[in-house]
Amino acid sequence: MAYKKIDSKDIEFLVSVAGKDKVFVGDQIHETYSRDEIVHAGKYPDVVVEAESTEEISRIMKYAYEQEIIVTPRGQGTGLAGASVAFQGGIMISTVRMNKILELDDENLTLTVEPGVLLMDIIKFVQSNDLFYPPDPGEKSASIGGNISTNAGGMKAVKYGVTRDYVRGLEVVLPDGRVIEVGGKNVKNSSGYSIKDLIIGAEGTLGFITKAILKLLPLPKVSYSLLVPFPDLATAIETVPKIIKSKSIPTAIEFMERSAIVAAEEFLGKKFPDKSSDAYLLLTFDGNKKEEVEDAYEKVAHICLEAGAFDVFISNTQERQETIWKTRGAFLEAIKASTSELDECDVVVPRNKVAEFIKFTNVLQKEIDIRIQSFGHAGDGNLHVYVLRDDLPAAEWKAKLTKAFDRMYAKAAELDGLTSGEHGIGSEKKPFLEKAMGEDYMSVLKSIKAAFDPKNILNPGKVC
Amino acid sequence: MAYKKIDSKDIEFLVSVAGKDKVFVGDQIHETYSRDEIVHAGKYPDVVVEAESTEEISRIMKYAYEQEIIVTPRGQGTGLAGASVAFQGGIMISTVRMNKILELDDENLTLTVEPGVLLMDIIKFVQSNDLFYPPDPGEKSASIGGNISTNAGGMKAVKYGVTRDYVRGLEVVLPDGRVIEVGGKNVKNSSGYSIKDLIIGAEGTLGFITKAILKLLPLPKVSYSLLVPFPDLATAIETVPKIIKSKSIPTAIEFMERSAIVAAEEFLGKKFPDKSSDAYLLLTFDGNKKEEVEDAYEKVAHICLEAGAFDVFISNTQERQETIWKTRGAFLEAIKASTSELDECDVVVPRNKVAEFIKFTNVLQKEIDIRIQSFGHAGDGNLHVYVLRDDLPAAEWKAKLTKAFDRMYAKAAELDGLTSGEHGIGSEKKPFLEKAMGEDYMSVLKSIKAAFDPKNILNPGKVC
Repeated sequence: MAYKKIDSKDIEFLVSVAGKDKVFVGDQIHETYSRDEIVHAGKYPDVVVEAESTEEISRIMKYAYEQEIIVTPRGQGTGLAGASVAFQGGIMISTVRMNKILELDDENLTLTVEPGVLLMDIIKFVQSNDLFYPPDPGEKSASIGGNISTNAGGMKAVKYGVTRDYVRGLEVVLPDGRVIEVGGKNVKNSSGYSIKDLIIGAEGTLGFITKAILKLLPLPKVSYSLLVPFPDLATAIETVPKIIKSKSIPTAIEFMERSAIVAAEEFLGKKFPDKSSDAYLLLTFDGNKKEEVEDAYEKVAHICLEAGAFDVFISNTQERQETIWKTRGAFLEAIKASTSELDECDVVVPRNKVAEFIKFTNVLQKEIDIRIQSFGHAGDGNLHVYVLRDDLPAAEWKAKLTKAFDRMYAKAAELDGLTSGEHGIGSEKKPFLEKAMGEDYMSVLKSIKAAFDPKNILNPGKVC
Repeated sequence: MAYKKIDSKDIEFLVSVAGKDKVFVGDQIHETYSRDEIVHAGKYPDVVVEAESTEEISRIMKYAYEQEIIVTPRGQGTGLAGASVAFQGGIMISTVRMNKILELDDENLTLTVEPGVLLMDIIKFVQSNDLFYPPDPGEKSASIGGNISTNAGGMKAVKYGVTRDYVRGLEVVLPDGRVIEVGGKNVKNSSGYSIKDLIIGAEGTLGFITKAILKLLPLPKVSYSLLVPFPDLATAIETVPKIIKSKSIPTAIEFMERSAIVAAEEFLGKKFPDKSSDAYLLLTFDGNKKEEVEDAYEKVAHICLEAGAFDVFISNTQERQETIWKTRGAFLEAIKASTSELDECDVVVPRNKVAEFIKFTNVLQKEIDIRIQSFGHAGDGNLHVYVLRDDLPAAEWKAKLTKAFDRMYAKAAELDGLTSGEHGIGSEKKPFLEKAMGEDYMSVLKSIKAAFDPKNILNPGKVC
């Protein structure tokens, strides 16, 4: 498909809509707009518009649709699969200026926000109102629009679910510029196909999110974290299905290896409470009553010790818990800092298959002779497996990475897992999604895309 | 669009697929297959097939797609909006024989079921394993396939959410007979557009659900119910936003009027603990610790008394709670038994708008001079408002019903509510959905339908 190339008339139009100070071309475009956190494509859009309202975005989309110009929606660019990179140029619409919290409704427990509000600002704002927005992805400087677009998950999915579970309503600009509202503040909805759920996780390919109504919960009053050292990773991970089976529901269950802890210590310049063991589970429990939460974690501590844990370290002060979880939060950056280049595999598998998958990657790294590091959400089966380039020459790196990815995605499919647990498909994981899901599934995705965007102008080449 | 009429060759094909004893034509078709619980259309399909496997349904769909024959999916026919009625004849595929619970996986907390399993059987089965399937629609003899197709809600949505929140994976036969699997046992999923969420609530118009993987929770150990008498309905309902604002999360908050209680008493032949007041809130609290649950309900009891409640009756025995909730569960049947015909409006509004909506219906019933009864889920804003025919002549009934519905749906839209909270759109609520949502929204629904079913053979004329 031949798209229209941007010319001076198009720029004139964009300036007439958004104003001169919000439209950037050529050298004015900041380097960050050429990449995301994994894909350093060096591909620039022809023009960046920092939109300020739904109306601006609607007018630009209508124009782009008529003129057949590519539009790439952009939040903070913290994605890991290339979804917000403008590989084919065109217009990039950034939501960086649409960063207002519009309303806290404490009678309906909802928060209405613009798409450019940062996750960290939402968390802080609702906490200061004694409320709780549970989704907890590691990258707190992501925009909420980006979180919704990838259906971001995070650590607390074990107990609280993912971003999808906390989006009550959306305002969406369709590829042709029309604006629809879906959902709202309503708790239930059986009023036609759930367009809302289709837009969530669509990585900006079906519509442009311009407003979101989020569901909030009361802030839990008590929280404990448990750091549990194990002799090895297999023993640690194999304990998780036993915890689930015991009908305890921790808020989070993460697994980590000593190597990741050491890397994070170096990166942060801060000491972790313990690194004498090869492998750890890190758990959190929250609730409103001390006794209730204590009961829950004591039961789980007992299960861990029975399963071979060396010890159970309990933290109940906020400071201590923050230290531990900050280390966990720094893993990706620490691993990044430890190598020249990396790529990640974000598969999700049923919770009782995590151990098998991790064993497989350990064998694989020896077989292919490449460094593979992993950590992740043991409690929800979502793994983050990083293949590291270190000092490999380009061709060898590409060949080994391809081989490792082919094998890992095939293994995930074999275990009834899925291509992406929370980071999305973007441009980079498309071949793996196609392979894992097959033609019938992909044809349904493509027909949905064509139904929303028959001219394929909104974020083309992503997802399907 | 002209569909192919069923002839003897088609019947032959269906018999060759499913066997003679599972294919019914003409007089062999049971009367229940001509209607649902509200729509007594007297419209029979040309043939009913009681399918027994995904393969049978796939082969029939493929054939029907090629031949351009209408197919209507059918569960237990307990719907309230006409979605499972074969208004235009063709093939009805009933899931009544696909009623097997396939697997309880206690390491992943999932239950895999065929679509014809009854809700009551799921509840009983998981309870006997100390587990919990939270969605709690009043109609326990509905099939799970039907519950998923309408995204059924129920009483416990305040705390636990709706059916959508408990569907992890689906097996779906597409309109052309291809079979896809979406989701699975995985806790997270960012692997392309959420087809699963599109099928949920699609009322059997986008695909035929042949298997479902449900998410389970541990069974809460403690449960209390509070029956709270108020001087009038407005005072009762206006208390609900105060409860939500107090950051307590009851499991359920229902409102009811004396007239509904009296009708249910008569219907069940059983006494309700109290009917001295005009209006009541009925609340449940559950959890794992007695103290935790007691704290929660005491706080809420206090709020109710401050807001003008006469008293708070607390039930903690299972027997006592069952009596109360059985009465609540019998409201629809009781109201049905009290009149000659009725139709219902199942709108949902933001929780702090319930009182305003109910006041509006009270004015409306006087203005139009027709009996209107309502009860519903005060805690989640989902109302069930019944317009009763009593002894009105047919023409007058139609005219008054149309007027009442037009006004009520317009009011719901004005309050930022939605056409259906949990019963779906089917054939009956389509005009109201169109009016409420507008052309742009409906055109998106239609384009999704066309993407899945370009020949419009699967349950045509429903939803959009």
